[in-house]
Order: sequence, then C-alpha cells, then structure tokens
Amino acid sequence: MGPHPAVAAIRLAVRRALQDVLADVLAGAPRAAAPAAPAEQPPLVLVACSGGADSMALASALAFEAPRLGVRAGGVTVDHGLQAGSDLRAHEVAERLAALGLAPVEAVTVRVGRAGGPEAAARSARYAALDAAAERHRAQAVLLGHTRDDQAETVLLGLARGSGTRSLSGMAAVSGGLSGACGTDRRYRRPFLAVDRQTTRKACLVQALPVWDDPHNADPSFTRSRVRHEALPVLEKALGRGVVEALARTAQLSRDDADALDAWATQAQRAATRADGTLEIAALHDLPPAVRRRVLRRAAIAAGAPAGSLFARHIEETDRLITAWRGQRPLNLPGRVEARRQGGRLVLQQANQ
Amino acid sequence: MGPHPAVAAIRLAVRRALQDVLADVLAGAPRAAAPAAPAEQPPLVLVACSGGADSMALASALAFEAPRLGVRAGGVTVDHGLQAGSDLRAHEVAERLAALGLAPVEAVTVRVGRAGGPEAAARSARYAALDAAAERHRAQAVLLGHTRDDQAETVLLGLARGSGTRSLSGMAAVSGGLSGACGTDRRYRRPFLAVDRQTTRKACLVQALPVWDDPHNADPSFTRSRVRHEALPVLEKALGRGVVEALARTAQLSRDDADALDAWATQAQRAATRADGTLEIAALHDLPPAVRRRVLRRAAIAAGAPAGSLFARHIEETDRLITAWRGQRPLNLPGRVEARRQGGRLVLQQANQ
Repeated sequence: MGPHPAVAAIRLAVRRALQDVLADVLAGAPRAAAPAAPAEQPPLVLVACSGGADSMALASALAFEAPRLGVRAGGVTVDHGLQAGSDLRAHEVAERLAALGLAPVEAVTVRVGRAGGPEAAARSARYAALDAAAERHRAQAVLLGHTRDDQAETVLLGLARGSGTRSLSGMAAVSGGLSGACGTDRRYRRPFLAVDRQTTRKACLVQALPVWDDPHNADPSFTRSRVRHEALPVLEKALGRGVVEALARTAQLSRDDADALDAWATQAQRAATRADGTLEIAALHDLPPAVRRRVLRRAAIAAGAPAGSLFARHIEETDRLITAWRGQRPLNLPGRVEARRQGGRLVLQQANQ
Repeated sequence: MGPHPAVAAIRLAVRRALQDVLADVLAGAPRAAAPAAPAEQPPLVLVACSGGADSMALASALAFEAPRLGVRAGGVTVDHGLQAGSDLRAHEVAERLAALGLAPVEAVTVRVGRAGGPEAAARSARYAALDAAAERHRAQAVLLGHTRDDQAETVLLGLARGSGTRSLSGMAAVSGGLSGACGTDRRYRRPFLAVDRQTTRKACLVQALPVWDDPHNADPSFTRSRVRHEALPVLEKALGRGVVEALARTAQLSRDDADALDAWATQAQRAATRADGTLEIAALHDLPPAVRRRVLRRAAIAAGAPAGSLFARHIEETDRLITAWRGQRPLNLPGRVEARRQGGRLVLQQANQ
C-alpha cells in the first residue's frame, strides 16, 4: 500500500523541486556566495520551518526524498523573539526537525526591526537569517513552505496595491535571497505553490507530526490574516469554489506577462537611449503605452527618482511630454529629477544638490 | 455659485467624452454603419438609460453638456421584459429622458434568450437593441453609465476566471458594438469609469432626479450582485479603503499590458508563420513564454479549435512540443485540431471530416 494521497502529493512536489536543484548543480550553477564545497560532498538543501503544518509537511517530505536523490537535508527555524516563550518554541521545532532525520538543524534568533510595518520587518529579518544560514552551511537551496493558499492571499494583497501585472504575480517558485550575493538568485524554492494548505495539514495528521499554529496567523490586526480569514471565504462564497486556484493561476500568468513586458522594455530602452543618456522621442512614440511607461519609469529611477515615490501620475505626465506635446514646461519628479523635452529628445536629469 | 461638486464631476466626465466623440468626427471616423448623415446635421449622441442612478446622472449630464458642444442628445431605454410592469417602467424612464430635453427618446422592448445564463443573455439582448437604435438614428456614439464601482466588480469577476491579464482588464472606456459592423468599433463610451457610484447617486439627489433601483441589483442569485454586496465590502474591510480604486487601476494597467502583449504576439506570429501555414520552431523557441503561448493559442484557433474549449493545459502541452521536445506524439486539441512537430516546424491542422 502506497502512502496517503496527501503524503504522496507533498513528496512529489518536493521530489520535483530537488530534481530542479540537482539539475542546477549539474548545470554548474554556483552555490551560494561561499566557495564551492569539495566535490565529493553531496549538495545540501535546507528547509525553513516555523513548526506550522505547511513547513512541517515540507520538512517531512524533504527528509523522505533527499536521501533517495543523494541530497543532504537540513533545517532552520527562525525565532523572531516576538512572543513570550518563542525561544523554547524554536528549540522544540529544531528538535522535531532533527527527529525527522534532518542534519544540520539550527534555531536562529533574529531581532525584528520596525521598517515597513510589523509584517515586512519580520519578513526581512527572517530572510536575512535564512540567507546567513544558507551561506554558513553552504546550502545549495532553501525550501519554503508557501502553499497555493498563501499564493492566493499574496495576489489579493497585490491587487489591493493596484499597481499592475507585476504586483499580481505573487511569489515565484524560484527566487533569490535578499543579500543579492552572486550566485544566490535561485536560492529559495517554493515546492508547495501548487499544493493547498489542506493537503499539508492532512499530511501532518496522517504522519502524526505535531504542528504549531502561529497565533499571528489568526490575528486580525495583520492584513494577511484578514485576507485569509475574512476576504477569501467571502470571495469563495460570492464567486464560487475555485477562487484560490484562479488567484494562483493569475499569479503565474501575471508573472509571465510581466517578465515578457520587462524584456520588451529593456530592449526598447536600449534602442532609445543615446550615448549621452537622453531618450529619442521618435524611438518611444510608437511603442505600446504599457512598454513606453515601463521605459520611462526605469529611466526616471536611473536618473535618481526613488522607486517608492514614483507614482503612476508621474509617469503619465512624463509620457505626455512624448505623446501630447504642446510645449509643456519641465516636470519635477521625485528625487529632484527633472523631465523635459529638448528637441527630439527626452531628458531626465537630477538637479545638482 | 457653481453646481454641486457631484454634478460638476459628472458633467466634466461627460464633457470629456463628448469632446472625444467630436474629435473622432473631425478626424473623419465613419459614423455607425449607416450612410453619413447630411453634413449640416450636428452629430447625435445617445445615452443608454435603465432609470437607475448611474444612467440617470449620465442622461442629465448629457442633456446639460451636449447643446454647449453643438451635439444633439437622445436616449434609449431597454425593456428586458423580465419583470411584471417592466413596460410601464420603460415608458416612465423614456418620459423622464424626454423631460430632461433629450430627443429622440425611445423605449425598446427586447426578448431575452437563455444562452450563457441570465446575465449574459440579458446583456446580449440589450447591446443588440442599442446597436440597432444607434443605427436607426445614425448616432455617433452611445454613452453607458458604468461607474468605477462597476469596473471594480468586473475586475473581480475576471479574477475569478483566473485566465490572466486580459480577463482583469474590465470594461474599456471606448468599445465597439456586438454587430461588429464597419465603423462601429468606437460606438460605446463609458464616461463614468473613473466616477464612483456614490457621486452619481448624489448628483441625482441634488438635481431632484427620480431614480429606480433595479431589484436584480440586490438579488443574491446574480454573481455580480454578490460581488457588489458581499465580496467588495469585505475586501474593503480586509484590505482597507481604496480597494475599488485599486481594482479600477488594475483594469487600466491590465488592459494596456494585454494590448502590448497582443501586439507582440501578432508580430511574432507573422514572423513565425510560413507560406504553408506551419510555424517555424526556431522563431518561437526564444520568445518569452507569455508571447509564445499567445501565438500558439491564436494558431490553434485559426486551425479550427473553438476558443471556449481551448484551456491553458492545451496550450502548455503544445508549448512542450517546442520547448521540451523529446519525440512526443501528436496532440489532440479541441475541435479535432492536431498539433505535431515535423522537422523544424509546428503543424496545427484540423482532421478531415
């Protein structure tokens, strides 16, 4: 008799992710930023585990699959120090990971700052700790337990920003660390993006794995928690079952679309940029608005405008220098960047001091 | 003292739409499908009015602005015959439109079929009647009262389909009729896409315009009604005020992105298609997935696959003939279309009989 379907599903997802990691190793992708480990050492994959059902299921599937693929499997749990007893909790999670047969296993304590709000600050601290652990252990990859439900929530959160296709593209199945160190751009893997949360819970249940429900996940003072417990159930009721799948599919399609448009914008920007850094109006004028605005946004950022202060209306006004030219005065963009039309060129320039 | 801000807002929106219509007239855009009206006759713009707040506000603003811009203003109300007394209701709405000074004014009765469900069937019948009215009166344009709130609802409905950027692009500010007759591709205008529903209600209130609340709008058996009364309020609660604006912005950005990607796909398809209708693998292989899949979808439809039966998985499988070739057998797509790789070409062909 084979494993329970939920266990089979999580193992299959992890097996595929590990095969991708091994394909990267064979293709000679550099490991982390650290010098490559001696060749005879099998590659190490870490699981980031909070002790919740998603990441405990992930840890169990990694422990099962890794030895079969000649991969070493370790685990890291991060103690955010935000709740009383969180250190004991982290210690307990590390013991559970070790009991699954993972090695090395670490509980890492971080200090959560305040930048960007509590959720963003905890996230930054967590990824910094995971980056550091990956480098310390020369890990080839770090697995994260985000499920299709998390992906759906991320899409809704992106939708609320209303900033377009990229913001709807959710989390990537493969992404880089925060450090941006060379060779780490495929460090994080999310094998469960197509697996639903219910399956991970079921897999823990049938494997008799103890799981811990983070009270933060149910705290309505967190936006994500409200999306999970209030918005998504009502959306399912209004729009029918399948909303989570539809949102996850939207993420993938939006990511592909945003990538294609970014590629076009890169090429268009290169074609339009003169040696002195100004942009040829003629090369921009006939581009589709979606591409032209991406080029303008990049050019403004390259000239010194802070990305976070550059809003759609700034780009639209700049665009009118190209498409609705009637002798407008120069525009002031954030970061003391001035946009002006000069002859057949668009000049984006930061004012001196 | 100027008009109430709500009235000023709806008038400004309509004024801009009428200016666009006049610009089209000056640019020599053909009118409807009918022969052009004699040159001395000012252009006619019709408002489609259900008697609800949105379209009554639109009618009032059209009645105010049209004469100032040298435009004739008329109105059409459609009796769907779905509720007892709907004929009297339509007659009453027509009288209200005439009382605003609109001429010609018509109440048109339609027969709603069943194809595609009650909402889609009513919509088809309504647009067919509006198309016919526009042609009968040789109208230059038909104004529709869809607000920013309607746009947000449409985006959520598109999100539930999970079929990508185009399905998130909501309603266009300018669109064509169903008939597809030559010269009618800019017939419909939606001046209120950036105006919220509350503003139209307020404008009716301060102008003492009687409005009619369609009981269908509150009927939870309609998906749109559930989105309006259940999903959006909870989303606002979970994600914060501004969700409606964010959704409306998403519509515009998604529309622009989808247009740009469609333009790329058109050009890529042209470049990849040989004289015999087959596609060059080499010309498709290095395209971004988002563009390549659009080309494959179009090619499958051109070969005879019905658009409605062609799902993402069909396109993905076809894509693997290009990007993951390992001697697969030919694929069977809907509509008896076969996809196979033959030498350096992709052949999409409908089986005979």
